[in-house]
Amino acid sequence: MKNKHALIVGGGLVGSLWAVFLAKRGYKVDVFERRGDMRTAGYSGGRSINLAMSHRGWRAVEKAGIQEELRQVAIPMQGRMMHSPAGELTFQPYGKEGEAIYSVSRGGLNLELLRIADQHEQVRFHFHQKCVDADVESGKVRFEHALSGEITEAEAPLIFGTDGAFSALRGSIQHRPRFNYSQSYLDYGYKELTIPPGPGGSFLMEKHALHIWPRGNFMLIALPNIDGSFTCTLFMPFEGEYSFEKLQTEAQVSAFFQQFFADAVPLMPDLLHDFLQNPTSALATVRCSPWNVGGRVLLLGDAAHAIVPFFGQGMNAGFEDCTILDGMLDVMGENWDEVIPLFAQQRVPDANAIADLALQNFIEMRDLVADPEFLLQKRIAALLAERYPQDFMPMYSMVSFSHVPYREALRAGKEQAVLLGRIAALEGIESQLEQHPEVDRLFWEWKRQV
Amino acid sequence: MKNKHALIVGGGLVGSLWAVFLAKRGYKVDVFERRGDMRTAGYSGGRSINLAMSHRGWRAVEKAGIQEELRQVAIPMQGRMMHSPAGELTFQPYGKEGEAIYSVSRGGLNLELLRIADQHEQVRFHFHQKCVDADVESGKVRFEHALSGEITEAEAPLIFGTDGAFSALRGSIQHRPRFNYSQSYLDYGYKELTIPPGPGGSFLMEKHALHIWPRGNFMLIALPNIDGSFTCTLFMPFEGEYSFEKLQTEAQVSAFFQQFFADAVPLMPDLLHDFLQNPTSALATVRCSPWNVGGRVLLLGDAAHAIVPFFGQGMNAGFEDCTILDGMLDVMGENWDEVIPLFAQQRVPDANAIADLALQNFIEMRDLVADPEFLLQKRIAALLAERYPQDFMPMYSMVSFSHVPYREALRAGKEQAVLLGRIAALEGIESQLEQHPEVDRLFWEWKRQV
Repeated sequence: MKNKHALIVGGGLVGSLWAVFLAKRGYKVDVFERRGDMRTAGYSGGRSINLAMSHRGWRAVEKAGIQEELRQVAIPMQGRMMHSPAGELTFQPYGKEGEAIYSVSRGGLNLELLRIADQHEQVRFHFHQKCVDADVESGKVRFEHALSGEITEAEAPLIFGTDGAFSALRGSIQHRPRFNYSQSYLDYGYKELTIPPGPGGSFLMEKHALHIWPRGNFMLIALPNIDGSFTCTLFMPFEGEYSFEKLQTEAQVSAFFQQFFADAVPLMPDLLHDFLQNPTSALATVRCSPWNVGGRVLLLGDAAHAIVPFFGQGMNAGFEDCTILDGMLDVMGENWDEVIPLFAQQRVPDANAIADLALQNFIEMRDLVADPEFLLQKRIAALLAERYPQDFMPMYSMVSFSHVPYREALRAGKEQAVLLGRIAALEGIESQLEQHPEVDRLFWEWKRQV
Repeated sequence: MKNKHALIVGGGLVGSLWAVFLAKRGYKVDVFERRGDMRTAGYSGGRSINLAMSHRGWRAVEKAGIQEELRQVAIPMQGRMMHSPAGELTFQPYGKEGEAIYSVSRGGLNLELLRIADQHEQVRFHFHQKCVDADVESGKVRFEHALSGEITEAEAPLIFGTDGAFSALRGSIQHRPRFNYSQSYLDYGYKELTIPPGPGGSFLMEKHALHIWPRGNFMLIALPNIDGSFTCTLFMPFEGEYSFEKLQTEAQVSAFFQQFFADAVPLMPDLLHDFLQNPTSALATVRCSPWNVGGRVLLLGDAAHAIVPFFGQGMNAGFEDCTILDGMLDVMGENWDEVIPLFAQQRVPDANAIADLALQNFIEMRDLVADPEFLLQKRIAALLAERYPQDFMPMYSMVSFSHVPYREALRAGKEQAVLLGRIAALEGIESQLEQHPEVDRLFWEWKRQV
């Protein structure tokens, strides 16, 4: 049994949540965070896509015993609301009746988690502490105070790296032999925009939906906030015909939005200012292994597996790390020397699977959701899920509304694509989906094969 | 036109060769090397696989005008000599009559290149200078002297990073937005061993061959040196049934070699000492892009594209970087702002292709070269190359004995595999390869399709 003391490098979403888990196990926890205390300094937005919390995220906060507080800052979204170029709306539910993903602002959620973690006496936050490097064998981490420049060294028998996609702690592991690592960028960037609240904090569009303006090679999305506003994000290539590179002046931005997002323009009074002031950010996938150094150091969340945001699973995957790791401690006891290597080994394929699924979903969101064939397949999947609830769970639902390992969802999604393609190819299926005599036969034939 | 001054970070094989190219163009060149001067300090071996120089490498040294000096340290190897577990030998030529790859020791080649580069008045080597970091926008690089600890800053309008697979210069680029990077390790390691010269500098095995002891999941290879010795390398998993982990004692090493490499054991008097003293090294593939920062900074060789050694193309690919880059300067003039980004963009797919081919060739060397079906396909490929010299060049020859872009060789190899599989499946082909009536028909049918 180790001395019950842990360092957490990075006090973001996963770091704060994991501090709660450890505190509940009676650990003394020191959380080192590069930024200042957002309770006093505020949260700096401008490059934060809203988060969509789904089953995996909820299970983690339930296991930590803090779901009640978080329900209050979350807005259920039952489906996608597609906005056509002409402004027509089409709603596509995410799952069955009552299933939803939940919009939360990253800043709001982080504040709440920080507050909850800090209520535990044995959790101590250290702000403005930038991780400089670490001697991972001896368990020592060095920090530089962002304001004073003072160097501090901290040490503990357990060190968790939750310092995000550009993890400094991972940087110290990266030079060790046999560390596999990749960072891969999309040629697309994103920019945050805002639709402010209507009169009296009202919502100017449907509140309980994730809004999408799919336009083939680019898209705009909008997620609701509790104050009545929507956080919007434009995803677009950096270079090319329609690209950030081509939108440099107010006139260019204005013409582009009028052409492609005409129904959104009247809702965005600060569009031109926001567009030209807010940064254009890049989208990366980070994969690595191993996530651990022995039984002492472990990367979690984006530090271990950063993904693109198109499945809304980045935070959910990081929170699920906490659930699974905590569950292993429940079963195996706090034998960190066994638990940490086992967790690190078993979780990697799931992290790789959700990375792949998130990349796939980008194509779905920006392009396919406007495609009749794709929409037909979604209708077929919904029908099968309703007709055979024990035998067919659509891949999207597996990811968002279940705890099936991501790698299983990826595999199932590939198999389902075959079936959906076969059914969609049936003569007359579009008009008589519910009654078509071949659907059941094809379903059972497929079911016997998979 | 820029001030004719360049920094080269890393004075290994590619850095020294590129210094010669630049010197011949009249550039002042400062080469910064982490290690000491190997002309006085000697070359530290123990973890260096011998190199196999082939057409691409030779073309580069020819273009630099230094092939005569290098021919003297190179030994032609016309094919693979396979050693069966019972000690039977089988020879398999690499190409046509007169085609060979050339064994050179890394240390010997590096020494020679350094000597040649240093003969140019405008080339200056700075030893013991470890690259600490770089401000790639302003073209400043900082070095720390390994002995004195003194920090130097160097600056030039052109900076080339040839500091190998673990490039420090690349480290300074890696944190820039949209830099794609991956490092991926095999679960296999390698260890250098030696067969010393026979009496009077004689060779104790066939001199003009690359010797292979293929054993399925592991293998031993040996390449000749001009002093009559062979540099041997054992490739084997780190963990598992037959692995480095399992070979910890003299008794274990001795029993293992007696079981699998009985004919080599009498030739290796220092086997046990070497095995237990020499390090076990890891094998990585490094890919990244972009290799450049504007028209000012460029990675070359292993710093841009480190590959596993199984196709003998690592150094050849790095040298070909020099040929191609120098060729673009011939054609486009020394417009670095255009040449560097264009080179960096066009060369990446070729680097990725040879990385893939090198990984593939590992399976071929350790396993397939002992497989009758594989050997039959090699015979078929040789026959086709002889019968249709204009229409069929085996993939191995494309890589080793031509200047076809690596990406083309990769593509052609996949197509050829289809044809070779079809011919190998013909009834009675093994015994009547030369006369089989179907071979020509299948060849021309395939040729029309590709």
